[in-house]
Amino acid sequence: MRTVDLIRRKRDAEELAPEELQQLIDGYTRGDIPDYQMAAFLMAVFYSGMTDREVSAMTESMMNSGSIVDLSSIPGIKVDKHSTGGVGDKTSLIASPIAAASGVVVPMISGRALGHTGGTLDKLESIPGFRTDLSIDEFRSLLAEHKLAFIGQTEEIAPADGKLYALRDVTATVESIPLIASSIMSKKLAVSLDALVLDVKVGSGAFMKKQVDARRLAQMMVGIGRRLDKRVQALITDMNQPLGYAIGNALEVMEVSQTLQNVGPSDLTRISLELAARMIYLGKITKTLDEARETAQAKLLDGSGYRKLKDVIQAQGGDPRVLDRFELLPNATGAQEITTSRGGYVSGIDAESIGQASAMIGAGRNTKEDTIDPAVGVILEVKVGQKIDPGSILCRIYYTSEEHLEEAAELVEDAFRISQQPVEERDLILEVVS
Amino acid sequence: MRTVDLIRRKRDAEELAPEELQQLIDGYTRGDIPDYQMAAFLMAVFYSGMTDREVSAMTESMMNSGSIVDLSSIPGIKVDKHSTGGVGDKTSLIASPIAAASGVVVPMISGRALGHTGGTLDKLESIPGFRTDLSIDEFRSLLAEHKLAFIGQTEEIAPADGKLYALRDVTATVESIPLIASSIMSKKLAVSLDALVLDVKVGSGAFMKKQVDARRLAQMMVGIGRRLDKRVQALITDMNQPLGYAIGNALEVMEVSQTLQNVGPSDLTRISLELAARMIYLGKITKTLDEARETAQAKLLDGSGYRKLKDVIQAQGGDPRVLDRFELLPNATGAQEITTSRGGYVSGIDAESIGQASAMIGAGRNTKEDTIDPAVGVILEVKVGQKIDPGSILCRIYYTSEEHLEEAAELVEDAFRISQQPVEERDLILEVVS
Repeated sequence: MRTVDLIRRKRDAEELAPEELQQLIDGYTRGDIPDYQMAAFLMAVFYSGMTDREVSAMTESMMNSGSIVDLSSIPGIKVDKHSTGGVGDKTSLIASPIAAASGVVVPMISGRALGHTGGTLDKLESIPGFRTDLSIDEFRSLLAEHKLAFIGQTEEIAPADGKLYALRDVTATVESIPLIASSIMSKKLAVSLDALVLDVKVGSGAFMKKQVDARRLAQMMVGIGRRLDKRVQALITDMNQPLGYAIGNALEVMEVSQTLQNVGPSDLTRISLELAARMIYLGKITKTLDEARETAQAKLLDGSGYRKLKDVIQAQGGDPRVLDRFELLPNATGAQEITTSRGGYVSGIDAESIGQASAMIGAGRNTKEDTIDPAVGVILEVKVGQKIDPGSILCRIYYTSEEHLEEAAELVEDAFRISQQPVEERDLILEVVS
Repeated sequence: MRTVDLIRRKRDAEELAPEELQQLIDGYTRGDIPDYQMAAFLMAVFYSGMTDREVSAMTESMMNSGSIVDLSSIPGIKVDKHSTGGVGDKTSLIASPIAAASGVVVPMISGRALGHTGGTLDKLESIPGFRTDLSIDEFRSLLAEHKLAFIGQTEEIAPADGKLYALRDVTATVESIPLIASSIMSKKLAVSLDALVLDVKVGSGAFMKKQVDARRLAQMMVGIGRRLDKRVQALITDMNQPLGYAIGNALEVMEVSQTLQNVGPSDLTRISLELAARMIYLGKITKTLDEARETAQAKLLDGSGYRKLKDVIQAQGGDPRVLDRFELLPNATGAQEITTSRGGYVSGIDAESIGQASAMIGAGRNTKEDTIDPAVGVILEVKVGQKIDPGSILCRIYYTSEEHLEEAAELVEDAFRISQQPVEERDLILEVVS
């Protein structure tokens, strides 16, 4: 069938057959189908959506557009973890060492910061010497030795997704649930995993602003996994304020270290432990989820998660001493306090604004070509629910250049909502989809 | 504003400002905005539609993307006529000579056949010697002398439309009312017209299958004209069976000649006269529409419409004798009769199927690169409402090659619906929008 007829049928909300979606994805990957036809198709998907059968077929075609990273030579059950992206979200660096320390093999294929959300690779690269550009063979041998290794997406892994993502970015077709689901799952499943734990963020700081959308995304990804014989569980977690206190690459590594030593923020600790427990459970280390929760807790308390991360940092060329001596990490040259003139209760901290402000002073990227300043960011001094007096410090902005600082400070200041009434605590983990 | 933000806002059904639409059209015409962004925008318009203000602004930008054909040196009021395209629709070749013979200046910028619908230029080019590739200066001087001349769209006229149309064709975004309206009106108004009469076809043989869509298209085009200070009237006419009896280029020229001699089919005569009357009225030749109808009728009966077409054929290099001696036109080498095995009343003749069958044997184009065989086509022997006996001839297919003939014959045969009950006559002119 001609490409234009496939576009027309999707436009008219018809279901395309698996082989028709494969024809589209393969043709686009090879360059036979031009960007303009794919752009029209993506916009049609934005409006018409996709059935579960369609999204699974598209994911499979995207997954098979490159080579599959075969990990069958490594003993043990392989479980990856993925977050849809949030502000201050450093759970990957906490949950994955705890899971690996418990016996799960954790092949982490991680992403980079874009827009107001951070990326695990950028956080790791704030550690002097840390290399994320491993070859697949190096990745495999580190995984065999340490049960945990971090790598970025290579050109061989799901190249169709790389090409599609770049096109979506410039055609206003990023925010489509089936397109997000197929993008995430095609990359993840291009590695021979056994299971996957997803953290679907919802709230002002996340791609998904509404819980109903987050649920649909989670259900779609779990369904894709099921059809491809992978066990997938998804947590839907709140991103209406940044996670933890630190936002910014080196600042977040410091908070990771504190959390793995059990002196981290309670929200970050809670979500990281639950994610680790799900990884341990899906990795069949324990028989029940409750046992997996106990195991995760124990590996946090006995410091084995912390030591695991240290080992992996060393194995990937980084300086492991950074976890104890924060002065070895890139440090900001200036700090600006943001204070409040009013007393009351913190009722909201707009995560998107905090993320944008951090990106503005160099912690993130507005375009893929931007370089990151690992030292800069924001450290919150208060969290939602906390009582504050007039003159209290709300947060500190850490910077290395005063460019955009004033603009960022205004954005940060406006991010805080203060109410006269005490604020009810919100649930952190809103739902589990499995 | 960045192009991706304009796409996003249209995607979310926001109204774009005139200068934003101009930025899009200008950027696309210059090549600064790539095809893939425009494709996503067009699909967003397909779903989100456009307000009247948007469609007018976009039309104006498209109209101004090339040079405006200035006809101010030619005395008289300039009125063009446009049909949205149908099967057997040769009204332009009848209404425009009648209007010109009545004193209206008629600068006909005509199109070519595409898909199952015919094009005026192809019909004219079936006349040996007829040239449609006039320069703008030749066009102007022929218009001054004869008040009527035919030309194709040149690259200087609304180049944005040419580029957009080619893109819509391959991205399944042809069938969008605001995109159709802006495409037609930008081309027409790139000539300094005073008024325009539109024939919006509705039914199986037309782009618009439903009257409500045809009405919306007509209203949109009339509105665009009003905002640009042009008087525009639109007839909504039935295309549930071919117009007249002849379908195919030379065959239609023959029927034009008969109709201009007042021995043509009644449906074709009726619509052509009404279109001519509207042109005469908007051309201010008469004070009232009824007087204009009388004038049109008179110019048909006294043969001055017929003589006008003959003069113009001669002026554009064609052999005017073809209007009397049909053997001077390209002639088919074979004819196949399609008969019916059942008697009854003809209750429907699917115009799209007849158009497709004609195109299949060479009368039309499936791609812009196809060449036309001017001799071939279909001549109906019956029209809707007619009583027929078993064995009656329904139509004849005129061909020059047997390639695709059998396929075309099947399509033609299936196009006829025969009922046992007499059929109510349908209105030909369904609505007037002005």
